Amino acid sequence: MEKETARIEGFSDGVFAIAITLLVLDLRIPATENNDRQTLVNSLLKQWPSFLAFSLSFFSIFIMWVNHHKMFKQIYRRNSMLMFANGLILFLATCISYPTALLARYYGTPSATVAVAVYTGLFVLINLAFNLLWSTASRDRKLLRPAISDAAVRKIARNYQYGLPVHLSAFLLSFCWAGGALILCIVLWTYWAFTSGRLDLPDEKPVSVP
Amino acid sequence: MEKETARIEGFSDGVFAIAITLLVLDLRIPATENNDRQTLVNSLLKQWPSFLAFSLSFFSIFIMWVNHHKMFKQIYRRNSMLMFANGLILFLATCISYPTALLARYYGTPSATVAVAVYTGLFVLINLAFNLLWSTASRDRKLLRPAISDAAVRKIARNYQYGLPVHLSAFLLSFCWAGGALILCIVLWTYWAFTSGRLDLPDEKPVSVP
Amino acid sequence: MEKETARIEGFSDGVFAIAITLLVLDLRIPATENNDRQTLVNSLLKQWPSFLAFSLSFFSIFIMWVNHHKMFKQIYRRNSMLMFANGLILFLATCISYPTALLARYYGTPSATVAVAVYTGLFVLINLAFNLLWSTASRDRKLLRPAISDAAVRKIARNYQYGLPVHLSAFLLSFCWAGGALILCIVLWTYWAFTSGRLDLPDEKPVSVP
Amino acid sequence: MEKETARIEGFSDGVFAIAITLLVLDLRIPATENNDRQTLVNSLLKQWPSFLAFSLSFFSIFIMWVNHHKMFKQIYRRNSMLMFANGLILFLATCISYPTALLARYYGTPSATVAVAVYTGLFVLINLAFNLLWSTASRDRKLLRPAISDAAVRKIARNYQYGLPVHLSAFLLSFCWAGGALILCIVLWTYWAFTSGRLDLPDEKPVSVP
Repeated sequence: MEKETARIEGFSDGVFAIAITLLVLDLRIPATENNDRQTLVNSLLKQWPSFLAFSLSFFSIFIMWVNHHKMFKQIYRRNSMLMFANGLILFLATCISYPTALLARYYGTPSATVAVAVYTGLFVLINLAFNLLWSTASRDRKLLRPAISDAAVRKIARNYQYGLPVHLSAFLLSFCWAGGALILCIVLWTYWAFTSGRLDLPDEKPVSVP
Repeated sequence: MEKETARIEGFSDGVFAIAITLLVLDLRIPATENNDRQTLVNSLLKQWPSFLAFSLSFFSIFIMWVNHHKMFKQIYRRNSMLMFANGLILFLATCISYPTALLARYYGTPSATVAVAVYTGLFVLINLAFNLLWSTASRDRKLLRPAISDAAVRKIARNYQYGLPVHLSAFLLSFCWAGGALILCIVLWTYWAFTSGRLDLPDEKPVSVP
Repeated sequence: MEKETARIEGFSDGVFAIAITLLVLDLRIPATENNDRQTLVNSLLKQWPSFLAFSLSFFSIFIMWVNHHKMFKQIYRRNSMLMFANGLILFLATCISYPTALLARYYGTPSATVAVAVYTGLFVLINLAFNLLWSTASRDRKLLRPAISDAAVRKIARNYQYGLPVHLSAFLLSFCWAGGALILCIVLWTYWAFTSGRLDLPDEKPVSVP
Repeated sequence: MEKETARIEGFSDGVFAIAITLLVLDLRIPATENNDRQTLVNSLLKQWPSFLAFSLSFFSIFIMWVNHHKMFKQIYRRNSMLMFANGLILFLATCISYPTALLARYYGTPSATVAVAVYTGLFVLINLAFNLLWSTASRDRKLLRPAISDAAVRKIARNYQYGLPVHLSAFLLSFCWAGGALILCIVLWTYWAFTSGRLDLPDEKPVSVP
């Protein structure tokens, strides 16, 4: 059976690759008036929230791409709902640069909680969109790889079960403790990075249905 | 028969993916002087025309890509005119970020009608370019997939028949009612999003002509 | 025989697609202070050099991509010199946005000749790089598609023979008549656009050497 | 044996292509107040550090892409560590535009040493990431192409053995002689460009393990 989703994957990969690279445009060099060495070093060091926000968002999009890749490895057919869910994921991935810039600008100011709430709120939406994608794909198995086992479908769903509650907690926490909300996200993303290798399914080789 | 258009599709996908992602660069965070929380929340809320323009343009390019994808699935050969029509579509898709920025800046001001006229005018041109592409491709069937049926060719042409008149109406309406012109576009795009699944042709599997 | 150049083509397509789309970032909306309708219309109309420069550069990169595509269709192997010549083409294609912005800013001012000289000068370099690529590829036929005929190699070389002298003339002309230099470029690019279809070689189908 | 790394390579190519093209956004045309010809020529000439920084960074990313390509030609399987090492390389490649802008802004000022130290320091990190990638891939040969010879694995490792010490020396040198540190980098990159052709392995053709 031919995979119907090849061009969707290619387009999605393109959007992820561009969204992840465009983040660097918000890393602006300090606008110092004089060319003094110490001034430059100090201005560079003061930019740490920009570097932190850039790094965080870079790895979050990278993890989104890995997850997207894994799901689409099992998806062989498409319908309108799947196209919509995928479009929503790409839309939200593209948006990430906006709250990243907010975080870089307002972290360490009294408005940090607003910036972190927008940032973590976006990840709540991203988790909802990924859940929509996988539930659309796995409903009745019609869109999935023919030979996929029940265990494999459950394994993928299970790996993302922490996503929504953790990001929701981070969103709620952000209103009182901005730093804590970010730490919560970093812990989850690190967990995902380390367990992503284990998600490889034993029967992953492509099947050729006559 | 080998598809001659594979590298054209890859290049076009790249341009669509970049054009759709670059839109986010016009979502600039508010330039507030102080770091007060309430000021930031208010500035964010006041940016709603930017968010609206970004979302609208994102989904319009996404729909363009889906349509492009569907047409090229049936196109197997190329000539100079097809290359030109495709180049025109990519040119116009790239342009979309300009009226999007106009819309974000001037919506809600006395100049809204100018911004919406430019915005909807661009979509009139885009529809003309898509019509040019499909009429070039389907003239004499020389460029199409060998086994394609008359019904399939008509089905594709029919799905886009509302495009030109609706966008033209939106363009004309924009001079007196900017909001109405945008609503007209949204209605059409939503219709396309919902009917795009139905466009799949029954005989879509690739043929291997000896 | 496997094509060794597939990933080079993919990477080059990516760079062309991004370079062509990034051009739009120099199309900035007018920075009007008031929101008056007439002011906006006037500011938009005054931007015509920006629209002209953007359109010119978009189509010049599109033509570069078509030419690149045609040459690489015949190139099956690579060496260090070919990699270098291709890297140079990509470098110069990426650069185009800089003289495009110069042209948009200074066309119609006393400095127009400087802007057009830089612009046409870059295309002289681009032609040299394309000549380097094709002469590297066709020297001894070692890098070309095995079954390619002498006539086909000459046909490709001949199609580009006008490139260097015309762009050189445009460069020299730009010092005294900026508009004329641009017209010369447009005439050549239009000629290339119309003749590009004729460049298709009769024996273009891929060969499978045992 | 199917190559498991195809989509990783595609995504990485995308990020390299975008990172290399985005560099041009830091080539800003001079902001001259008057439109005088001589003023424009002088402003253009004064921008030479920008052109130098852009060219240097463009070719450094191009060389990174060539190296990445060569390594992945031998890598057939993936694990979490390989994904992480590759993500790190993409992250650092994306970052290059930041010290490039620093170099363009501060070269020729008293702060040049700071800019060059950040620039060369980033390349030290890039070399560490490439070493991590290759040592992960070649440990026990589990991830490599099945038929690869010991000589081939050593040949690749040997080609990069100068990378870390030379970039480290450039980093240390940058604190006292900024220009010298850049020259050291250019010498190494030129050496890599010229020897990259020799890295082609005799047994490079893909094997089909039953």
